[in-house]
Amino acid sequence: MGSPVVSRSVMALSSFDRAPSDPTGPRFKFEDIYPAVDGGRYPVKRIAGEPVAVWADVFRDGHDQIRVQLRWRRENADAWQVADMQLHGNDRFTGSFTPAEPGWYLFQIEAWTDQFASWRKGTLLKKQAGQDISLELREGLEIARALLPADVTAHAVVADAVERFNREPEALLSDDIGGAMAQSETRPDLSRSATIPLLVERARARASAWYEMVPRSQSKVPGQHGTFADCIARVPEIAALGFDVLYLTPIHPIGHTNRKGRNNSLKAEAGDPGSFYAIGNASGGHDAVHPQLGTLADFRRLVEACKAHGMEVALDIAVQCSPDHPWLTQHPDWFRWRPDGSMKYAENPPKKYEDIVNPDFGSADRIALWQAWRDVLLFWVGQGVEIFRIDNPHTKPLPFWEWVIHEVQRHNPNVIFLSEAFTRPKLMKALAKLGFSQSYSYFTWRTTKQELQEYLAELTGYPEREYFRPNFFVTTPDILPVQLQGGEPWLFKSRAALAALLSSNYGIYNGFELLEHEPLPGREEYRDSEKYEIRTRDWDKPGNIKPYLAMLNRVRRDHAALRRTDNLRFLPVDDDGVIGFVKDAADGGVAGAIAVTGSPHEFWLHFGDVQVGGRPVVAIENLLTGEFRRLEWGGVRLRIDPQADPALLFRCVT
Amino acid sequence: MGSPVVSRSVMALSSFDRAPSDPTGPRFKFEDIYPAVDGGRYPVKRIAGEPVAVWADVFRDGHDQIRVQLRWRRENADAWQVADMQLHGNDRFTGSFTPAEPGWYLFQIEAWTDQFASWRKGTLLKKQAGQDISLELREGLEIARALLPADVTAHAVVADAVERFNREPEALLSDDIGGAMAQSETRPDLSRSATIPLLVERARARASAWYEMVPRSQSKVPGQHGTFADCIARVPEIAALGFDVLYLTPIHPIGHTNRKGRNNSLKAEAGDPGSFYAIGNASGGHDAVHPQLGTLADFRRLVEACKAHGMEVALDIAVQCSPDHPWLTQHPDWFRWRPDGSMKYAENPPKKYEDIVNPDFGSADRIALWQAWRDVLLFWVGQGVEIFRIDNPHTKPLPFWEWVIHEVQRHNPNVIFLSEAFTRPKLMKALAKLGFSQSYSYFTWRTTKQELQEYLAELTGYPEREYFRPNFFVTTPDILPVQLQGGEPWLFKSRAALAALLSSNYGIYNGFELLEHEPLPGREEYRDSEKYEIRTRDWDKPGNIKPYLAMLNRVRRDHAALRRTDNLRFLPVDDDGVIGFVKDAADGGVAGAIAVTGSPHEFWLHFGDVQVGGRPVVAIENLLTGEFRRLEWGGVRLRIDPQADPALLFRCVT
Repeated sequence: MGSPVVSRSVMALSSFDRAPSDPTGPRFKFEDIYPAVDGGRYPVKRIAGEPVAVWADVFRDGHDQIRVQLRWRRENADAWQVADMQLHGNDRFTGSFTPAEPGWYLFQIEAWTDQFASWRKGTLLKKQAGQDISLELREGLEIARALLPADVTAHAVVADAVERFNREPEALLSDDIGGAMAQSETRPDLSRSATIPLLVERARARASAWYEMVPRSQSKVPGQHGTFADCIARVPEIAALGFDVLYLTPIHPIGHTNRKGRNNSLKAEAGDPGSFYAIGNASGGHDAVHPQLGTLADFRRLVEACKAHGMEVALDIAVQCSPDHPWLTQHPDWFRWRPDGSMKYAENPPKKYEDIVNPDFGSADRIALWQAWRDVLLFWVGQGVEIFRIDNPHTKPLPFWEWVIHEVQRHNPNVIFLSEAFTRPKLMKALAKLGFSQSYSYFTWRTTKQELQEYLAELTGYPEREYFRPNFFVTTPDILPVQLQGGEPWLFKSRAALAALLSSNYGIYNGFELLEHEPLPGREEYRDSEKYEIRTRDWDKPGNIKPYLAMLNRVRRDHAALRRTDNLRFLPVDDDGVIGFVKDAADGGVAGAIAVTGSPHEFWLHFGDVQVGGRPVVAIENLLTGEFRRLEWGGVRLRIDPQADPALLFRCVT
Repeated sequence: MGSPVVSRSVMALSSFDRAPSDPTGPRFKFEDIYPAVDGGRYPVKRIAGEPVAVWADVFRDGHDQIRVQLRWRRENADAWQVADMQLHGNDRFTGSFTPAEPGWYLFQIEAWTDQFASWRKGTLLKKQAGQDISLELREGLEIARALLPADVTAHAVVADAVERFNREPEALLSDDIGGAMAQSETRPDLSRSATIPLLVERARARASAWYEMVPRSQSKVPGQHGTFADCIARVPEIAALGFDVLYLTPIHPIGHTNRKGRNNSLKAEAGDPGSFYAIGNASGGHDAVHPQLGTLADFRRLVEACKAHGMEVALDIAVQCSPDHPWLTQHPDWFRWRPDGSMKYAENPPKKYEDIVNPDFGSADRIALWQAWRDVLLFWVGQGVEIFRIDNPHTKPLPFWEWVIHEVQRHNPNVIFLSEAFTRPKLMKALAKLGFSQSYSYFTWRTTKQELQEYLAELTGYPEREYFRPNFFVTTPDILPVQLQGGEPWLFKSRAALAALLSSNYGIYNGFELLEHEPLPGREEYRDSEKYEIRTRDWDKPGNIKPYLAMLNRVRRDHAALRRTDNLRFLPVDDDGVIGFVKDAADGGVAGAIAVTGSPHEFWLHFGDVQVGGRPVVAIENLLTGEFRRLEWGGVRLRIDPQADPALLFRCVT
């Protein structure tokens, strides 16, 4: 650039010179990588043994031939595995890989220009056009020499062609050489995408039926404190109902200071057992069991009994302490103290929780505090527990959960975490994003067809379906929804069917099967809640809906389609009191209709253009009666009498 | 945690201990920040002097009071400016700022817990509930002391209350103290979002009417090479037509080696001027002007003449050289050479472009090469040029453009770049993302109502509208669309109306106003293209549509609504041959109907629930005739005779 005018321009700009980006850097663009949550800030969730399909737009400038690969590894592994990605038009590439085991993984996409393939394509076009390609062949020879593959076989193939070049220059254009050169590891413009984390879990993270049990209420003797042995006695019955997670409310020693009495009264009477969420007393804290329940060995026997029946125990972890918890004296720095030296109770002004103190996550000794909570979880993992239900995670720092879940899963990738956060939607989703396997949801308060369809459309949309796995609880010890307070059996069945069929994770709180429905007046809470007292029940009380629950759990076990939530599609039904849906899976599609109002319904269930296994649905077969119905005009006319059974379930025939 | 069992657990895990994340780190989440392109990888584009509205979901765990601020600065400025963001429910915060000048900016969001406000809110609730708050007041005193604001006034207010505490403890709860404490700079959990880049440009980046001129064809004497003086002579006429960008095809010396003849013939005849895209010969390269056009001083006179008429010159930068370009001898390393020592011409196999060689962006001396191209641009900036149309940017590395645009705009933030990339959609969008102010589009080939509406819906959707500003050219020297080859005047007018009214950036190539439409048979190219020869025209040839173009440019100047594209909404029209639309702006809304087929149309233009300035449209007034029409049933019945005028334009009356 010899012009004096330009030289002046350069001089004038010297203060402003920057080194250009390295042209060998990211020549490629990687856009719209699917799946990813918040651009790869949080992990996508998948199930071990299932293929992870990845799509992305990958391109560079110009028209050269490019190669695109998917690479993945376990987070702590050194070596990446790779798979080619294929172009599907409009610069979109797809590929897939299958992580065999649960754990934290990473994947990314890499691309480079295939210089030899670009040369070969252009030269073949020129040859077809009858042009002289002798100089092009010499250029190809230079490329082949420069990019000689290291692989022994490929190397030999190329080296042979190079050696024969003077006699057979056009051999360079052969498919063999093209294939061998494709293995060249010399990739000067290799570019890589952002790294996307992937949380691979076992199948129960996606499909589980929870039975929530209050251990101290499991004695057969009225008023007597239940034991782990009493719990073990109930395992065969619960397993027979088809539940696969036995979820225990906290099993730890209960504080005495400010113990709550029956119905959450401020003062406990003598003999009141206290809330099991006021954790810890002189006999131990979160790593101890309440002596009246039994010993740690008894607890492990319960874990084993469950395993023997195809179930497993989930523990309830509440990150809070009673004023008598050993940590208050061992680690006073982990708690807040008031100006008068008294402890700072939990509160939600003006409400106060005098039987509970919260750890101070801002404590100067917080690193030890975080580690102590991790060790509590690992302690129970050591006792055979691989599912934790975390109480109120939304009131503790999000970075803590992100760290502790990752820590525990690095130790044991089978561990599943359920987030019990009933709070604002963004915060609930944030907890799911950072690693919770499952999440409580608003299902309990979504009762109309429109509410349920809107909510599930949100949860099964992208990207929610990649990270948020709802667990639909019909009731909890804290929530007796208004709708159920009338105790109508059809409605209990309808709610169970909605929970068990629309969501692949669902749960009931013990007593639901007995239609328990007595509220504190004007509240959504149970009267005489067993959070504050011991209850004794006849588990075979007449009128119970155990056979219905067993039926629901059985069809869930028989049909993979019902063991996921992200495959849900609603079907048009010309009745606002009936929800129609279909779920598809490799072993066949299941369709259903569930009444959400109690009067009889006659309605059309329309399939429209819905396909199952890639084929149109032509008929349906009732899963319970075997009745076979061919679709007419894309639908079928059905009848539900909710008082008999609020749900219809069908195998889709294609 | 004294339990021996737990200690064993900790020991067993020692290999696996990691330092927890710093709990004082990002306690807050910042999600769905709007506006952002690819999560902040590329800049959002805005116009100087206009507010930038920012939204984001900001939250932390728990229920404390939080404060959220928006901060922004010019990229090279040290100091951030800040503005409070307001909560709009569901954890969404909004705020805005107004960058006064063009340039590259950054913005981000920060949040922190307002510890004093949280204390104050809780304490007021307890007081309202009649609880004893004396201990709470002492806690408040501790917080006030710890977080004493530095601001002199606020500090005095708080210090006074602290001093008076023993006499008037409840003064701590006053609004004054709350306001003063809100200024505390002690923010231990301050968290910041990702930083989002913002490219602020002048108004012409968003609204411009381009007249593309081939300088050598501007002489009035047939066969005579035009000069800059001839161009200057045409400036008043083009300005009177209302165009504001005079875009010149390349003005540099043209190569002799392998010069192309008329109609792109391989061999030039004596006297053929050659393609102006074969840039450079012994008299200079990209920083020189073709001697037959005049001198650099003549060029600057053209720049000045345009400015005097409210227009400006855009230069065409083609990053390629003729074989005679000085750089080939000065910098042979910047080019590719073949095994026989000959130069490597540009090609798109089997097509060859023997009059052009491409610089080698992979050259070992590439840093000097990149800088040389930057200096070419800065040279022309030095001559008063602030708009560049870049030829075929998609065949050069994307990182080069990202670097060079940024470099030039750091020198002069008024510089506008138009990307002439007719290629795959993702690559066109990538160029727009990395910094091109405007982009050529597929408009030239979108002719039906459905095609145009679908394409514009894509370009005005999110996030496209944040970075991709289409420039709708009706024709170019390379493209005479099949549709226009019949030379129908109404269709030329319709295409001009579509381009000028749907897109705020549009352009014509000289000759369009004269309805030039003679193609090479079976091609979309002009016969006797002035790319390869000199044309002389009668610019006032009978039948020209200059008055129509002047009308379109006048309404664009009169109505801010027509000077943006992202405000486009289509209106329902019950005729597939008519496109209805409305655009809204602060100074009023404009509605229009444009025929895309030639027979007369009678149709309803429906406004439905469309609002203008936040109010329903009740009537429309024809911009040309002043005819006033009140809407009936939400619409109005209209008639277009395309042969007279294919477009109707209205002021919206609310």
